[in-house]
Amino acid sequence: MPGKTSTVGTARSYREEVVPASGAARQYDGFHHAFTTAERDAVYRAIFERRDVRRNFLPTPIPEHILKRVLTAAHHAGSVGFMQPWDFVVVSDRSTKRAVKRMFQKTNAEAATRYRGKRAALYRNLKLEGIEEAPINLGVTCSRQRGGPHVLGRSTVRDTDLYSTCCAIQNLWLAARAEGIGVGWVSILDHSALKRVLGVPKPVKVLAYLCLGYVSNFATRPDLETAGWRERIPLEHLIHYESWGNTVIERKGKR
Amino acid sequence: MPGKTSTVGTARSYREEVVPASGAARQYDGFHHAFTTAERDAVYRAIFERRDVRRNFLPTPIPEHILKRVLTAAHHAGSVGFMQPWDFVVVSDRSTKRAVKRMFQKTNAEAATRYRGKRAALYRNLKLEGIEEAPINLGVTCSRQRGGPHVLGRSTVRDTDLYSTCCAIQNLWLAARAEGIGVGWVSILDHSALKRVLGVPKPVKVLAYLCLGYVSNFATRPDLETAGWRERIPLEHLIHYESWGNTVIERKGKR
Repeated sequence: MPGKTSTVGTARSYREEVVPASGAARQYDGFHHAFTTAERDAVYRAIFERRDVRRNFLPTPIPEHILKRVLTAAHHAGSVGFMQPWDFVVVSDRSTKRAVKRMFQKTNAEAATRYRGKRAALYRNLKLEGIEEAPINLGVTCSRQRGGPHVLGRSTVRDTDLYSTCCAIQNLWLAARAEGIGVGWVSILDHSALKRVLGVPKPVKVLAYLCLGYVSNFATRPDLETAGWRERIPLEHLIHYESWGNTVIERKGKR
Repeated sequence: MPGKTSTVGTARSYREEVVPASGAARQYDGFHHAFTTAERDAVYRAIFERRDVRRNFLPTPIPEHILKRVLTAAHHAGSVGFMQPWDFVVVSDRSTKRAVKRMFQKTNAEAATRYRGKRAALYRNLKLEGIEEAPINLGVTCSRQRGGPHVLGRSTVRDTDLYSTCCAIQNLWLAARAEGIGVGWVSILDHSALKRVLGVPKPVKVLAYLCLGYVSNFATRPDLETAGWRERIPLEHLIHYESWGNTVIERKGKR
């Protein structure tokens, strides 16, 4: 049904095909652009309650239509020159997960040797992945040659295709949170080995390996904050007015 | 007030300090983790109605507390090793905007020479930035040395700090959409010149230059799709099952 697939991507069609029409969905037909306070709060809720999940995964399978909904959210990120450089490799096979888990264990053992004393002990106690517990693993790739040699907006910053793919990942992460699905990004992997396991061709980059599943609970704070690994930086240290260095903190200091 | 700033970042505190408590916000106190259907729909709405905005900016200023809310959303992205490598340079000064606009014009004139015939004419007709119309411009940076030499999770993939910063940008983009604020990412800029204009130090990378402002209207589709520059790829072409190449399309073709 080419007619049908060609409309999958439009903003109007997600309500018809992906998200079943609810009262809230019907309210904003015709694209009246303001969000209600409740809608706005829900967006902030997803943003603030999203976690990088490595524990509490339930074995409950993710239904195909919900996985598709979450991937549709990813696919609706903006991309440089409308390049849409991403692909998604959906892994549920146990033997693939086991192979990736072994890769993680090897790389993580090496990483652990970088720390000394208390920090090393703390590191070894952290749970940093949920590869085998999560019902779905997801490789997110970036096809760097998609869209031909001259992608609009990419001539000055070549890596904008990678950046677009990261934006897609964040969309997926937030949509998943709204669905009650936890997502964990496992970065402690040898990416050339990972490419072989997933069968990803040479010119395509594997950007992320994610673990997805329903969870019994979302933590209220990031695990690394709770574990005392590192603190959240106060936002006002990070906002510079007009040019670098002119933060509220700096200005207070100058008084 | 150090006691106050130190709680700005916690998930609980955003409701108290950033988002004024509404009925919807009170409902989920105690972190009961399920979203209502209306909340879930609102998250999808933000995702599907977010646009890369280059036109329709209104001169209405963005109040400080709303800008801060949107930046708080960015700051609540996950980051590799809880590194939080981002900073935000908030520009409202006209002369800075004018300098950046001139940089864009120069780079864009060069970019236009890459296309021929109809494509070149189409390119020249596209509006690719709203630098001077948008009340706020925002440089988003990535401090690559923040968190010391051994950032947890970054030993195998050095660029995960950049990826985290992109996730922060997507949070900001979606929060802005929920606030009725349009955001446009201008990538057609010489980033070394941009760093000089913003006074950003050498080891810090400028990842994105964004234009923010209230808009009269959000387009229903991406501008490049409407202009016929490029079409949206059907999602089913991009989902591979278990390993690369095993898409629904491929499987259909093999029948």
